[in-house]
Amino acid sequence: MEKIENSIEGKGGSPLLDESGSALNNSHVRRDGKAVGFVLVHAGAGYHSESKAKEYKHVCKRACLRAVDKLKAGAKAVEAVTAALIELEDSPFTNAGTGSNLNLSGEIECDASIMDGKSLHYGAVGALSGIKNPVLVARRLLSEAQKGKLSAGRIPPCFLVGRGAQQWAENHGIPPCPSEKMATKFSLSAYKRNKRKMELAEKVETEQIQAKKRRQLNEHESGLENLGTVREIVVDLGDNDSACLDTVGAIVVDQEGNVAAAVSSGGLAMKHPGRVGQAAHYGCGCWAQNACNISPYSTAVSTSGCGEHLIRTMLARECSTAMQSENAHQALLEVMQSQFISSPFLASEDCVLGGVIVLRCCRCVDTQSSPNLQALLVEFLWSHTTESMCVGYMSAQDSKAKTHISRLPPGAVAGQSLAIEGGVCRLGSISD
Amino acid sequence: MEKIENSIEGKGGSPLLDESGSALNNSHVRRDGKAVGFVLVHAGAGYHSESKAKEYKHVCKRACLRAVDKLKAGAKAVEAVTAALIELEDSPFTNAGTGSNLNLSGEIECDASIMDGKSLHYGAVGALSGIKNPVLVARRLLSEAQKGKLSAGRIPPCFLVGRGAQQWAENHGIPPCPSEKMATKFSLSAYKRNKRKMELAEKVETEQIQAKKRRQLNEHESGLENLGTVREIVVDLGDNDSACLDTVGAIVVDQEGNVAAAVSSGGLAMKHPGRVGQAAHYGCGCWAQNACNISPYSTAVSTSGCGEHLIRTMLARECSTAMQSENAHQALLEVMQSQFISSPFLASEDCVLGGVIVLRCCRCVDTQSSPNLQALLVEFLWSHTTESMCVGYMSAQDSKAKTHISRLPPGAVAGQSLAIEGGVCRLGSISD
Repeated sequence: MEKIENSIEGKGGSPLLDESGSALNNSHVRRDGKAVGFVLVHAGAGYHSESKAKEYKHVCKRACLRAVDKLKAGAKAVEAVTAALIELEDSPFTNAGTGSNLNLSGEIECDASIMDGKSLHYGAVGALSGIKNPVLVARRLLSEAQKGKLSAGRIPPCFLVGRGAQQWAENHGIPPCPSEKMATKFSLSAYKRNKRKMELAEKVETEQIQAKKRRQLNEHESGLENLGTVREIVVDLGDNDSACLDTVGAIVVDQEGNVAAAVSSGGLAMKHPGRVGQAAHYGCGCWAQNACNISPYSTAVSTSGCGEHLIRTMLARECSTAMQSENAHQALLEVMQSQFISSPFLASEDCVLGGVIVLRCCRCVDTQSSPNLQALLVEFLWSHTTESMCVGYMSAQDSKAKTHISRLPPGAVAGQSLAIEGGVCRLGSISD
Repeated sequence: MEKIENSIEGKGGSPLLDESGSALNNSHVRRDGKAVGFVLVHAGAGYHSESKAKEYKHVCKRACLRAVDKLKAGAKAVEAVTAALIELEDSPFTNAGTGSNLNLSGEIECDASIMDGKSLHYGAVGALSGIKNPVLVARRLLSEAQKGKLSAGRIPPCFLVGRGAQQWAENHGIPPCPSEKMATKFSLSAYKRNKRKMELAEKVETEQIQAKKRRQLNEHESGLENLGTVREIVVDLGDNDSACLDTVGAIVVDQEGNVAAAVSSGGLAMKHPGRVGQAAHYGCGCWAQNACNISPYSTAVSTSGCGEHLIRTMLARECSTAMQSENAHQALLEVMQSQFISSPFLASEDCVLGGVIVLRCCRCVDTQSSPNLQALLVEFLWSHTTESMCVGYMSAQDSKAKTHISRLPPGAVAGQSLAIEGGVCRLGSISD
């Protein structure tokens, strides 16, 4: 694997090289014809404190291993990506599955989706409660849709939400899980803390509105213009980790060159019940598309961050489309700048928060072995506008995964600047 | 208004002119500087029997009038499109709001969304029960999001589903409506008929599977290959109107040239509870985008048909993007053929069902009056792969709306062929 480039770029700024990405420097290309494949996972774009970095890296490592175990056993990309997601959901530290953020009513409601680059089928669940692994329901929706029509010519659903999704899961053999088992000590205490903050914020905001009205009335009566502003106190849920961290995901290429992508999220802390974020939105949470006549590269994308920003910019699909350009790094940089940070769809936002993991791959002739054999060339990248993003990656030829917490450089403003890093990996030899 | 072209085209076939579109031949250009605007509505792509055509045309006419009343009163496109949708939802004949298809459990669950081309804000609800006008909730989500952040820096939702969406609506002053008031005699009898058909279909399908197994076992035991097939009985919900008709929508341009689009649907008959269709999917149900530096035309799109097909092809957004081409008619024809009927995303589908209404507009100098005045040139089109599609359209300068039931020509196969029609309308003079 070769490091390709790590750069940090602000709005309209010029790239600054970041030389810290030592995790990307190892080269481990094997051409022994064994089953090949590659997985890249993320445990959320947000803010990862140093103290929790270890836990996040651990779960990314385990998720990569799960996917690679599947790949080595000959599983397709969709199976491998599901295995990675289950591990990420099961961690009490991530905001997905167990340990998800609680909503305004103190409940857990999860979003998840999965896409198969070969069949281009897609499955998604939104605002799903009482299921330990939401990705399993999305995965099952995908596989049921692949079977074709239901009885009486009915078209199978690709997206289910709420209680109906839960019922469907149970009818398809996915067992229910009591909500209290999915909440953790950490998520419950974060909920209580957030609730207090919200109450304080609402009190402060109401007082400020009343003070402003009084001031305007006084000015109107005295005939004086407003010559000064009163200091405003801002209470923001974003102050603590749990509100920022969002969404886990994985992207995989298997030994046949098929790609798959998945994403899962507990959503924003203190969200309104029934709110569905990008993790359940087609084109926004994940995207996977095998190469075809008009697209030379297979691409897979999974996103993380503020759901509404990722939805309105359809970031997953935009990244996938851009990956057909010649220079993957440059294409991703341009998408993140012009179609995310400076997107006309987010013109009113001064802080655009999100992150993506992206891979693209193509077959290439393996000149170092037989000319009848081909290798898979995988380019993988991650980019984020949040303070940090935790990623892990591994090829089926590696003995262990590499993990990395990518951070904006000191002084860069989250929501207005971005970090971009990645690598290249040539995967074994496969028969033509 | 000038008729531009009516053509029917099959997979790879050449256009056939259809000379029946007399509704499109009238020209009524006024340049008196009055408030201008234009609305195009649809009451679903599906199958409209002659006997019901009158009702569908009536509701389209009324919906156009509601939108034009708003436009004349100086309302923005978003308000006008909402007014049209309310009228379409309130009709007991359409599959949206009152009279919606019942799901598998005999309940009404609605999807709706709206998009404002000026702010590019979007609001959507999915699987929403107990609210008479789902579009009002989508509209309110859009306007609440436009106000900026909630207390404690929380990001407002753009998409709510299920019980949470219903609660949010009630908290925002949108009154609940008992489900029994939204069901109609027609929707209830269609449900009972569909339920019987499904039971019959499941019985027949189970028997066919068992017969096939017995046959295979006999062949295996006797060593003979299968030399014939047993006649299969197919029971399909698509036989009756209610399963096919889907989704209503509207697109509007207002006197300032702002566009807006909206869509609302009761979803497929006998859908699984919690199933969300294209009407609640960003980029799939509707799209509206004002002209900007890189896009010379303002565009608005609303779709109808089989939700899963419209989702997986992201048809609304694809049509909007295509509308930036020079020839609107040709661009829509190409999108409907290559990105819908022959879409790689629907490769496994032999019958791709959907319809769109599209408008694009640009300002042009009104040479017939003062050079300081500009006119709005509106090109509007509809296209469908279903048997028929009911549309209505009206400019703010018209005294009444025109309605039309567009049909595939006799012999054309629904799901594999398409119809495309439209017109051009030059709207009054507006100050520069």
